[in-house]
Amino acid sequence: MKILVINAGSSSLKYQLIDMDGEVVLAKGICERIGEDGGNIVYKTGNGKVIKKERFFFSHTEAFEELVNLLTTGDAAVVSDIKEISAVGHRVVQGAEKFSQSVIIDQKVLDAIIEVSPLAPLHNPAAVAGIKACMEVFPKETPMVAVFDTAFHQTMPEKAYIFGIPYEYYEKYHIRRYGFHGTSHRYISAKVAENIGRPIEELKIVTCHLGNGSSIAAVDHGKSIDTSMGFTPLDGIMMGTRSGGIDPSIIIYLEEKEGLSYKEINNILNKKSGFIGVSGYSSDSRDIVDASLRGEYRSKLACDIVRYQVKKYVGAYAAAMGGIDVLAFAGGIGENSLHMRSDVCKNMEFLGIKIDEEANIKYDRTEHDISAPDARVRTWIIATNEELLIARDAKDLISK
Amino acid sequence: MKILVINAGSSSLKYQLIDMDGEVVLAKGICERIGEDGGNIVYKTGNGKVIKKERFFFSHTEAFEELVNLLTTGDAAVVSDIKEISAVGHRVVQGAEKFSQSVIIDQKVLDAIIEVSPLAPLHNPAAVAGIKACMEVFPKETPMVAVFDTAFHQTMPEKAYIFGIPYEYYEKYHIRRYGFHGTSHRYISAKVAENIGRPIEELKIVTCHLGNGSSIAAVDHGKSIDTSMGFTPLDGIMMGTRSGGIDPSIIIYLEEKEGLSYKEINNILNKKSGFIGVSGYSSDSRDIVDASLRGEYRSKLACDIVRYQVKKYVGAYAAAMGGIDVLAFAGGIGENSLHMRSDVCKNMEFLGIKIDEEANIKYDRTEHDISAPDARVRTWIIATNEELLIARDAKDLISK
Repeated sequence: MKILVINAGSSSLKYQLIDMDGEVVLAKGICERIGEDGGNIVYKTGNGKVIKKERFFFSHTEAFEELVNLLTTGDAAVVSDIKEISAVGHRVVQGAEKFSQSVIIDQKVLDAIIEVSPLAPLHNPAAVAGIKACMEVFPKETPMVAVFDTAFHQTMPEKAYIFGIPYEYYEKYHIRRYGFHGTSHRYISAKVAENIGRPIEELKIVTCHLGNGSSIAAVDHGKSIDTSMGFTPLDGIMMGTRSGGIDPSIIIYLEEKEGLSYKEINNILNKKSGFIGVSGYSSDSRDIVDASLRGEYRSKLACDIVRYQVKKYVGAYAAAMGGIDVLAFAGGIGENSLHMRSDVCKNMEFLGIKIDEEANIKYDRTEHDISAPDARVRTWIIATNEELLIARDAKDLISK
Repeated sequence: MKILVINAGSSSLKYQLIDMDGEVVLAKGICERIGEDGGNIVYKTGNGKVIKKERFFFSHTEAFEELVNLLTTGDAAVVSDIKEISAVGHRVVQGAEKFSQSVIIDQKVLDAIIEVSPLAPLHNPAAVAGIKACMEVFPKETPMVAVFDTAFHQTMPEKAYIFGIPYEYYEKYHIRRYGFHGTSHRYISAKVAENIGRPIEELKIVTCHLGNGSSIAAVDHGKSIDTSMGFTPLDGIMMGTRSGGIDPSIIIYLEEKEGLSYKEINNILNKKSGFIGVSGYSSDSRDIVDASLRGEYRSKLACDIVRYQVKKYVGAYAAAMGGIDVLAFAGGIGENSLHMRSDVCKNMEFLGIKIDEEANIKYDRTEHDISAPDARVRTWIIATNEELLIARDAKDLISK
């Protein structure tokens, strides 16, 4: 069974075609600048063939047509007919309270995704454009599945998702903590449980998805009970360009002092804060780690802040679950920054966390246990794979 | 030695006269509605005499004149001459980075308090008015001492006080975490260390000052290394009418949806959020606990949220310190809400926290250890006393 996984942006389309027999990636790539000058598509097959085409794509529909063309014809084709693709799984950022799991897309589902778009004004309309375009290009009988970033966190109790603001804003505008990266946290927690050979239903896991966007989740007996991102992906810890949670008064103060509009402040908090804001040097974790090691003061400060914030979330979520059995690091920073893992786990023996610094340094892009032999908590590096989980969900849904 | 302690608001004056021999309160009370209709002063002596006078106070100076009159003349006088008062200690909310400890007030200090007023626009000008009025009424030779809410937290490391926003806002406007209730956290941590008979320099303490305003601090070896209030007292956990920390995007979203100005949003987050916002019933913890016990859904939710937030801070600060030896509850809620303490400490055995539920219930307004006998962490109820610490600081400074 072959499943196509789609992550559509407003002018881009990321894709992976996965053969579910062996869960092998047959082809993957990205189509960029849809509707803009400089449009192009990159196509890579699992056996090493690479095609890059530059052309203007009028719409997501044209992008899908080109993709199907590449998948089915020519030297680098991986399927002989579009009908070999059993389903298409679409990543959708915001499912709000309407979706607590993945679903097969029908008109009602599509309407609901559109309905909650005000909660993700940049992302959901792009996903809808992707889904509609895909439906036009694929045969009517190919099932489409929606997999939501928020779904995994729908198990959070109210005490974790209601903010301390007038309750009417929850009732009227659905302002609450939704959390994001849910597909990743679900993948990471399931994978680490599998790796240590214990049922997830008996584990207290803290999952750290740390990348350009970062979030941390408390996965208690297989269910997300809390997560650091909130109403939007701005909340929680500091990220590449995002502030994370700050004293809300700062926004009011900046408006008074700098005469900034809400839109300008929103832009500052989302695009000019975080690593780039504190370091003044780069939004890329690798750059600030390098600069930090060279002794750049503000880059070091940015590293210190984010690692300290992660450490505090680990402690907070251990408290939320009444303990911690497993700690998992994933995402670009989680997988590649030994300093992040080292600093977060330092002096955490009181929680049972202790890592083997040699194992931590030796990361070779394979998942492994970096715990010290005598540690009570298992600490792992996990290579997250949201696409695979989307494909699995699609497979499960169409096999029902 | 007798020390007068003053906490001045823009139209109020709280005072305590403390005899430092035995640390006994000789008289205390409040003068309210200064400069407004309905002005009054309440005066209570340590031996039970109560005077309430209603009159118009034109200014803080007139309030001080009346106070000196009550202290020195008539039936309820506690000193025969104003000169018996060795010093006056003034509570000042914001000392910013200029003050990391209490100081004797001279013109330079007064200028500095005024200079940092933009960081506490409601509080510092009131303190200055109080200090100036007090100087007019008291003999020139009576020393005045300033004790800052922020001073105790000046030991926080940068990683705890720098927010993930552009660094220039710290340089330009001094936007950072200051923390508040510092005098209380200092008192609580010192008192609990004394009570358990161990030097504070060897303890990791989490202090929970929970009242109408609430904050939590990590006191590591006697020094504050982190606290939940931030740039302003709005940050941290949910309070009577304050939201605590929220996803900053919510402010932007509310502006768009409701067309609110910054000032209106500031008002909502400070005055209409927290317990009153979530419960829709009361900003008073006692009311929402009662309603919660009667089964009122949203009051119960408000209780659940705030207790859960405190629990997470305890875990986070344990992580920040590499463990926890002592947990202390203080303030109106911390001292009086057995449910708060019970919920925060539930399932915290993994941290060594375990309370004796009978001891927890039996609180009789005296400080005591509520830990279970086998708990590794000592959990205490402490009656905080900021006034006493202000008086002690004044005494120490004038005795140098």
